[in-house]
Amino acid sequence: MRIQPHNLRTPGPTPIPDEIYEAMSDPMINHRGPEFFELITECTAMLKQVFMTDNDLFILTSSGTGGLEASVVNTLSPGDRVLAASAGSFGDRFADMLDAYGVDTQRITFEWGEPIDPEAIRRALRDDPEFKAVIVTHNETSTGVTHDLQSISSVVKGEFGKLLIVDAVSSLGCVPLPVDGWDCDVVATGSQKGFMIPPGLAFISFSNEAWEAQQSSTLPRFYFDLEEAKKYLERKQTPWTPNLSAMYGLRVALENILEEGLEGVFGRHASIGQFTRDGVRALGLELLCADEARASNTVTAIKMPAHIDGEQMMELMRTEENVVLAGGQGKLTGHIFRIGHLGYVTEDHIQEVLDALGRVLPRVGF
Amino acid sequence: MRIQPHNLRTPGPTPIPDEIYEAMSDPMINHRGPEFFELITECTAMLKQVFMTDNDLFILTSSGTGGLEASVVNTLSPGDRVLAASAGSFGDRFADMLDAYGVDTQRITFEWGEPIDPEAIRRALRDDPEFKAVIVTHNETSTGVTHDLQSISSVVKGEFGKLLIVDAVSSLGCVPLPVDGWDCDVVATGSQKGFMIPPGLAFISFSNEAWEAQQSSTLPRFYFDLEEAKKYLERKQTPWTPNLSAMYGLRVALENILEEGLEGVFGRHASIGQFTRDGVRALGLELLCADEARASNTVTAIKMPAHIDGEQMMELMRTEENVVLAGGQGKLTGHIFRIGHLGYVTEDHIQEVLDALGRVLPRVGF
Repeated sequence: MRIQPHNLRTPGPTPIPDEIYEAMSDPMINHRGPEFFELITECTAMLKQVFMTDNDLFILTSSGTGGLEASVVNTLSPGDRVLAASAGSFGDRFADMLDAYGVDTQRITFEWGEPIDPEAIRRALRDDPEFKAVIVTHNETSTGVTHDLQSISSVVKGEFGKLLIVDAVSSLGCVPLPVDGWDCDVVATGSQKGFMIPPGLAFISFSNEAWEAQQSSTLPRFYFDLEEAKKYLERKQTPWTPNLSAMYGLRVALENILEEGLEGVFGRHASIGQFTRDGVRALGLELLCADEARASNTVTAIKMPAHIDGEQMMELMRTEENVVLAGGQGKLTGHIFRIGHLGYVTEDHIQEVLDALGRVLPRVGF
Repeated sequence: MRIQPHNLRTPGPTPIPDEIYEAMSDPMINHRGPEFFELITECTAMLKQVFMTDNDLFILTSSGTGGLEASVVNTLSPGDRVLAASAGSFGDRFADMLDAYGVDTQRITFEWGEPIDPEAIRRALRDDPEFKAVIVTHNETSTGVTHDLQSISSVVKGEFGKLLIVDAVSSLGCVPLPVDGWDCDVVATGSQKGFMIPPGLAFISFSNEAWEAQQSSTLPRFYFDLEEAKKYLERKQTPWTPNLSAMYGLRVALENILEEGLEGVFGRHASIGQFTRDGVRALGLELLCADEARASNTVTAIKMPAHIDGEQMMELMRTEENVVLAGGQGKLTGHIFRIGHLGYVTEDHIQEVLDALGRVLPRVGF
């Protein structure tokens, strides 16, 4: 049974262009042979351009969460004090991961829907010199807020010289994140967002300071051991059998991104983000993120209007309008819904969503 | 640039049938929506049939090695004494993983190319009652030997009641491995072998005794946390964004396997294994595995004849005959070459390999 296409507007996975599907249908190869040497070399070089970094960069066969795990297990030791800034479900999840690894996690939390305040991070680092690292989510997918990573970095790196570890899962390749320009030590992301390829790969950049931290890090690691990844990359290989099909798609996706140019990619996301927010407000709906300057250009979270049946709304959108949206997560479940507008998406796709909302909302009491 | 098809005869990744590529080109879906609920439910149920188990079974987004890591981090604690039986590169790698996690690994090793001796395992377990678990590789991909897992299990489980953890990466779905019939607690495998789909998924079965071990296991885990996987599977989801494309392919692959019937699948591999070994011997070559009863039906390792240039032979096979073989690994590098004959392969494919070897070998001095 074939799956029918929807207007899929979750914040990842995103729809995939035909050209990517075609590349993904290329024949399997020996992942220890010359065709793979070329594939990984090209993908790694192009990814570094998209990350805007000269740091080491690795392609991992996992979800984005696996990339985050690699960022933790390769830099930290049990008992290390780490500041985890969170203003949403994914920020919390990242902090939970630190807990799972026995890190001394100090949470600094902000209202869901509001940006992380760099000043609060400054105070926390000033009050306690024991912090080894700060983890932060660049774009909080659960609330549609892009945090001010540049200012956060100028505090964490510029003022205090701590290790900065960034969850860039729903930002990298969509909104500006100059890894070297903003001095981010470790940046991890997944394949199923701005890259327009399916889930199944994670990408992680790793700075010299991250390698220094790695030297003394004692967390156990094997599958996500970046020292092993580095050793194999020198031979143009991966330690374990890689997700070849997704890498075939990745190569084409990266060629397209670099041909469009990063400024073009960022401009496209900025413009579609604005288009989405304007359209949502025109329907009389309210955004969760009140701060327009920090509203995400990859995903928009909308307050579920009072007195309407949100579940019925989502169900009608899906079954009658063929539009698949995302609900709220964690404590926002039932209180918001989200429109993804990253990767392979046009204003027409968003206009269809807005038109459909215009038809469905009155039927559920709005 | 499209990749041209070879006669790819590495022991995974294997070639992929067109039907699988087609399924993998299905549109992306919401991995928290009804189409995914159906996909994971169907794949999990069919995988249990292929594993011949009623145990819990999970689909992970990783290489097979990630599945092995899940088998370790969910059952063991630092300092646990574990017997690691190895007769090859993958057995050694599994033991290295235990070391990386601070397990008290006791290695029991056998000549590369020979089978693991169940009697030696019996002696080891008798001599030291402190062992908590035994890990074993079912089919040693680096040597082309299928170990006698049934006898090993009758010792480990039947006589001593220890936890039995099995690397089934190049065996499951190709040669008989009745997980419940042989009382295997944890069995992990990857997608790119007998299943005829690309790399990027791991599958792992987990018995009640494994869950008991999990209760007291203190190794840190997050991405590979099977308790989390279980919680999400109850809601027909995965904790992290899954490799959807590979799962689309997996559903079709499993339907095909079950339609053919497991006996048919095992018979097909037995017959092609025999065909390969006979053909190789007819060329005057010698198999690494002298014990015909334990020769692998998924991969054949062949001794590199003395006085020939092995590298040149492999290179000519690839560039002039379009046949991609695998070399030796670890200490067998340069001493053997390997023909994979698992998954999507016919006698015609193997005959082409044999014919090509017949042409190339004399040119390199055989």
